[in-house]
Parts: sequence; C-alpha cells; structure tokens
Amino acid sequence: MHLVKNFLLKPGFYDGWVDVEVKGWISSNRGNKKIRFIELNDGSTVKNLQVVFKGNEFDFDLLDQLKPGSALVVKGKLNATPNSPQPIELVAEQILEYKKIAEDYPIQGQEINLETLREIPQLRHRTNLLRSVMLIRSTLAQEVHKYFIARDFHWMASPIFTSNDGEGAGETFLVSDKNTNNAFFGKNKKATLGVTGQLHGESYAIGMNKIYTFGPTFRAENSNTKKHLAEFWMIEPEVAFYDLKQIIELADDLLKVVIRNTIAKHKFEIEYLNNLTNNELLPRLNHYLDTPLTIVDYSEAIAKLAEVKEIFENKDIKFGLDLGTEHERYLTEVIYKSPVAVINFPKDFKAFYMYQNDDNKTVAAFDLLVPGIGELIGGSQRESNYDKLLKRIHELNIDADDLQWYLDLRRFGHMQSSGFGIGFERLVMYVTGIDNIRDAIPYPRTPGNIKM
Amino acid sequence: MHLVKNFLLKPGFYDGWVDVEVKGWISSNRGNKKIRFIELNDGSTVKNLQVVFKGNEFDFDLLDQLKPGSALVVKGKLNATPNSPQPIELVAEQILEYKKIAEDYPIQGQEINLETLREIPQLRHRTNLLRSVMLIRSTLAQEVHKYFIARDFHWMASPIFTSNDGEGAGETFLVSDKNTNNAFFGKNKKATLGVTGQLHGESYAIGMNKIYTFGPTFRAENSNTKKHLAEFWMIEPEVAFYDLKQIIELADDLLKVVIRNTIAKHKFEIEYLNNLTNNELLPRLNHYLDTPLTIVDYSEAIAKLAEVKEIFENKDIKFGLDLGTEHERYLTEVIYKSPVAVINFPKDFKAFYMYQNDDNKTVAAFDLLVPGIGELIGGSQRESNYDKLLKRIHELNIDADDLQWYLDLRRFGHMQSSGFGIGFERLVMYVTGIDNIRDAIPYPRTPGNIKM
Repeated sequence: MHLVKNFLLKPGFYDGWVDVEVKGWISSNRGNKKIRFIELNDGSTVKNLQVVFKGNEFDFDLLDQLKPGSALVVKGKLNATPNSPQPIELVAEQILEYKKIAEDYPIQGQEINLETLREIPQLRHRTNLLRSVMLIRSTLAQEVHKYFIARDFHWMASPIFTSNDGEGAGETFLVSDKNTNNAFFGKNKKATLGVTGQLHGESYAIGMNKIYTFGPTFRAENSNTKKHLAEFWMIEPEVAFYDLKQIIELADDLLKVVIRNTIAKHKFEIEYLNNLTNNELLPRLNHYLDTPLTIVDYSEAIAKLAEVKEIFENKDIKFGLDLGTEHERYLTEVIYKSPVAVINFPKDFKAFYMYQNDDNKTVAAFDLLVPGIGELIGGSQRESNYDKLLKRIHELNIDADDLQWYLDLRRFGHMQSSGFGIGFERLVMYVTGIDNIRDAIPYPRTPGNIKM
Repeated sequence: MHLVKNFLLKPGFYDGWVDVEVKGWISSNRGNKKIRFIELNDGSTVKNLQVVFKGNEFDFDLLDQLKPGSALVVKGKLNATPNSPQPIELVAEQILEYKKIAEDYPIQGQEINLETLREIPQLRHRTNLLRSVMLIRSTLAQEVHKYFIARDFHWMASPIFTSNDGEGAGETFLVSDKNTNNAFFGKNKKATLGVTGQLHGESYAIGMNKIYTFGPTFRAENSNTKKHLAEFWMIEPEVAFYDLKQIIELADDLLKVVIRNTIAKHKFEIEYLNNLTNNELLPRLNHYLDTPLTIVDYSEAIAKLAEVKEIFENKDIKFGLDLGTEHERYLTEVIYKSPVAVINFPKDFKAFYMYQNDDNKTVAAFDLLVPGIGELIGGSQRESNYDKLLKRIHELNIDADDLQWYLDLRRFGHMQSSGFGIGFERLVMYVTGIDNIRDAIPYPRTPGNIKM
C-alpha cells in the first residue's frame, strides 16, 4: 500500500491525522460485529494497510461478507502511531464503493503452492510471493531503461519476424497465416520468430553507436526445465568501437547499478523474499554488489577447476569443456569468491560472429558468472574482418546467403563492436531468489503450456 | 555528434581549446592535398562535427580515400569559435584508427528516395532523415517509460504467444514448430501471436492497480497501406478504479508530456524534419502541445459533421458511422481546432469489453484525434458486469470458453478499470512528420516484405 510505503520509508510523510481515500483489494478481514480490521492492498507493495471499522454507521454484516480479494474504496483518517505494532492505520469513516468476490475465488490464503498458482497466471500476482516478484520484475525493467537513458544509449526494436536463423543456435518457431496459404511474406519465404535481436542490433550500432534492444525472443526447444522458456525477454546492448574489456565493464556496471537501485526501491519485497529463503537472498545480493568483478582467462579457469575435478559430476575438465553450472558456480562461489567474467573461450562452442583471437583457438567472448546461479550474461567482441567471418560461417555450415547483409556490415563501416545479452527472466530469478523461471514472467510459455 | 550537441545546447560547455578523441563515421569529405574537411557523425544527433586536417603529419592520399561511411577515430583539439559558420570544429592531430568503406556502399549521398532506402533497412539509419526518425523513436519510447515510472505504473509483459484471439478484431498469425509436429503447446492447442496485450494487461491491473504494457503486437491483415504493419509496438496502460474521464486525462497528459520532452531533446532532428515539411511539422506539434483537449460526444460530433457533409468523400453521416480519417481530421483541425476526444461511440463497431452505457446504444469508449493525422489513441472504460459482458460476447459470436478466465476477472475483484492503446509507430509518424509507417520502425514487416 503506497500510504504505508511512504510512511515507513519517508519519516514525517504523514503526521497526526490525515484525511484520505483509499482503493484496493482486501488481503484479510477479521473482527466481530462491533469492530473490523481489514487489510487492504493497492498493488504498490507487499505491505498492506490496516483499515479499522467501528461505530454504528457501518453495516457489519456487509463488512463480514467482504472476503479477501474483494475490491474496496473507503474514506477515513490516517492515523500515524509509530510506536504501536501497526505503525499506521486507517480509521474508516465511510465505504464509498465495494465489489464482493465470488465464493470460488481460488486464492483463499497465502499458502498455495507455486505449481497450483501456475494454473492461474491471471490471478497469482495477488499473492504476496508473486506480487513481490512481479513488482521487482517491473522495476528491474524500468531500471534497465533508466540506466541506458542516462548513458545516451538508443533503444532499438529488433524485428520479431525474421528471415534469418539468428545465431544458428536453438530451434525456431515458424509463422504462418491461414488466409494467404502461408505466403504472407512471399512465396518460399520462411518467417521465423527471432531467437536474438543481436544481429539486427549490430546493424544499428554502426551509425547509432550505442544501442540496446529489450524485447521478446523465442526458442522452440522442447525441453522442460526450471531455466527455460519458449518466450522470454532479452536485453542486448551493442556498442560500436568497444572491445572485450570495455563491454565487460559495461555489463558489470549495468548489473550492479540496476540491482542496487531495484533493491533500494523494494525494501519490503526483498525482506519478504529474504525471509522465504532463510535469509540467504539479501546477503548474497549484497555480497555481489560489494565485490569487484574478477576477470579470468578460460584456460586459467580450466586449470583451477582441474585441480579439484573429483568434486564435480562432470570430471572431464580440460580445454574444450563447455562449463556446466556446477563449474561456473564453483568458480564464482569458491575459487574467486566474487562475480567472475570468464574470457577467451574455445571457439568451437561459441557463436560464429565472435572475434577470433590470434591463437586461432579462442574467441574474445565472455560469460559473466554470479554466485548462486552461475552464468547471467554472455557476450563478446564481434569479428570485424569479413574474410574471417565468412570462413567461420562456412566452417559451421551456416547459410551465408541469409547472412550476406550481416557480412556486408564489415565492408560498410563496422570497424569494431561488442555486445552482450541478458536473459531478463534469469535476472528476475537472481534478484528474487525464486528457482523456477515460470514464476519470473506473468504468462509463462513452455512445451505444452499456453494458458490464455 | 554529441560534442556539437553539448556545445550548442549547453553554452560554455567547451571553452577555448580542449583535447578530445572522437569516434564516428564520415558523412562528407572535401578538400585537397593540403587541407581536408571531414564531417564526422557519432550517431547521437543529426549534427556533424567538422574535423580539419592540415599539416605534413597527415597522409592526404589516405584521407582522400576515406569516403562517406568510413569509420574514423581521431585525436585533436576542439576549437570553439561561436561566431564563425562552424561554431565548433576539431583540429585533427592524429588519426588513431580507421576503416575504409567498400566501393559499393549504397548510401553515397543524402538524396536517396525512401523506397530505395526500404530495401536496405540495415543501413538506412545512416542518412540524415532516417537517423532523425530513429533517434526520435528511441527517445519517444524512453520518455514513455519515464512517464510511467514517475507515476508508479508497473511495466507488465503481456504474452506474445496466446491461445486467445484478442479483441476478435484483426487476423492473427499462427505459430508452429516443425519438431513437434505443430503440437509444441499441446495437441489441438492453437497458438497465435497477440494482436493486443490488453486482456492480459487487465488481469494485472486487478491487483497491481496501474500497469502498462509496451511490446510488439501482430496483425496478419493482407493489406498494403502507408498506415499498417504486420508487426508493430503498442503501449497499453490499464488502471483499476479509473473511469472514462480519468483515462482520457491520462492519455492526454501522457501524449503531451512525452512529445514535449522528446522535442526538447531533439532540437536539431526536429529542425531538420521541420525543414523537410516546409515548416509544417513544428508549428503543428507546438499547436497541439499548447491547446487543451476538447471532449465531445460522438452524437454531437456526428451532428456537426452532418452540417457540412457535402465536403466529405463519405457523405453518409449519421449515428452508426465509423468515422473515417477525413471526418476525424475535420473535427480536430477545423471544427474544434484542438485535440479532440470523441466519446460514447455506438457499441456496434466497438470491442466487446467496453463499458455499456445506460442508453443501451453506446459504449464508454474514446478516440483521441490530433490535427494532421486523426486518431492516435483508442481506449475505453471496461465493462465490469459479468452478465452484460457475457451477453455481448454471445451477441458478437465470440468464443466464450476462450475468454472464461477474462470473464471471471469480473467475479474476482474487477470493480472498475479503464485503459487505452497507442500504436507506437503511429506516434513516431506524428512526431516526425513522415507519412509512411515503414519508415517509423527499423525493420518493417508487411505483406511480402521480410528483409533480414
């Protein structure tokens, strides 16, 4: 309730008795025929406002019928009582409007498990847990925009429909249209949904200099995990003239500024979530924010991990290994005790567009690892040499015709650029501590699951 | 060039001689073997920075080869000369890096027509016109977020994949996936791309109170016009407890604040575009910003239009007419000489979810009309009565099963809400004065057109 938030976060905001009118939904309702305590929530925070009804002017039979979930508009006097258990409450004077909730309203308490809530995505944000997550999600997105605005980045909309296959990584969804016999975009023209905005984003970085995309991306991978969605949002900055070191600095700074500002705005939601995680969440986030990034070469990371290889499930630790979450977490949590950017990966498991180092074995890529979850960001300096890029496309059997426009950027002004991608729902998971990505987006889409 | 922008917009920002290093792309290059004037652009504004090369330390043959489009990093001294034709220029000291442009670079001057430029969406933002449009587009989007952030709105991601048909208006795209034999989301489950985020947005307004979506939406309408895209971005706020009057106030304020702030940030781009429109654009925008909104009942608008019906192509002006652009423009430009919100439309051509007025003929909808283009925003108060809503769904032969979750919101806490939608590219057209929507989005998608 924003009245409560203001009162608690801005001392002196209300003083003595203040006339107010509040609108919200009932979280709880207890009392008898002479006095009623109704907790009201207006969606602005997980904190409720207690509204007290007493006196002959109220219909206590009606008040008894206003079950949790009902809408209520009430006028009264705000009473700041900083020393009592409820530091602020509303003494009701008049009910202006209300709408009773139907009896079969499925959210009857806060003790519903997350799987059940996933069946009602249109209602679950009214629980304390999902409300906290979704408020933080909104603020994270808004802080991302604010971060880029303050640094003169231009927001750019990469297309959703694309005739390219993106990174060549991940299965794509096809688009059709019954009215044109699937030829909406032209005969023999394939239209898929973008798996990344990066390639188009690069075209805008050349000429616009500093751009970022923030939009939905799609993968048709038929796997049910806690970390994958078929539809998810990505943040993808791309900066002309930047090299690997500069783009890593941007990634580190972006994450820390956005997370710090979001935590500051969501004291109560973070407290609530922190309690749910037995006080693990907030110390983890604070440790992350207070610890400088360590940059480590992939080869060095492999050497360090090989020293303790027996503790891993995958013990085959040598140059060429695509690090698993267990390895990533060990690096950031145990070996370096800090966020870690691993750089210069073997080119074999990285995308075709990454800058090829002189050793002919590695690319100027980075993965940013954070304690608690492992990889949160992946990025790279881009290959700017036309011939090297074309050779790599051929080596990987990617259709060069499809990508001619992208290749041509290297002949048309692409001297150097770097960028990275953040899976936005992964970031929401990290900051809220929830462990299933289906709870990090309002309407999750996964194999077999498309509600509403 | 941000150096130029800073200098011109913030007097005293540079003074005398300042050492700088600049990175950008060459817009023009003239001179001889003894002196070179290179205009450099870094993507921050349509204004270029003139870089002067003179002296024996430069390779003038090389300089001659740096054609427009080439990338250049150069060190020098910034010389503020406020009283000369070039109020600021860079006297080059050293070329740090460069990359020559290939000979077949298609943007050889600024005189390319827009149709030709649409064939090269990956490059066209490097022309003054498209650069101006795309910079303004980015700022409009960022100002929209800032507006909502400042007013405690929560950003909400409506799903792109949906099993609903949205408003029942407009053809939808179908999604398939070759690997699961088109059953990615389950057998007999239809997955389409959302035509609106509104219905899902409403679910979040109940509980979150003030939300907005800002994401891509899709229409598979096989029509080629200057005003339609198959993929476009929509801004859709939804506010619980708001009635029609309140939501119109929000729409009016949002538009004016966002446009005012955007113009203030893009003095040079607006000047450039204003010149292209023979000084029509800026006066039109300023008139719009300075003129209060007129709210007029649909019936009254019809009566006024009927008085002059002979001037219209469609002269059949009576209750029931779905206003055309010619009527809309006449209302806002001639009759009321102000932005106009037409309210209380006949229910027959409006969507099922709109609040049904007591007259049983009209709905509490509004269209916001602006001089120069007509409708820019459409919205309404929502019907909150379950039975009335269901009856309307049946009358319109919409599948009620699909929408049961939406209907149920009326039993589960939906006392009142209102919202509207802005087609973002229409807004870009309005503020930039361009007349084809294909030039308002980086990679336009229309029937037969899916480049990259």
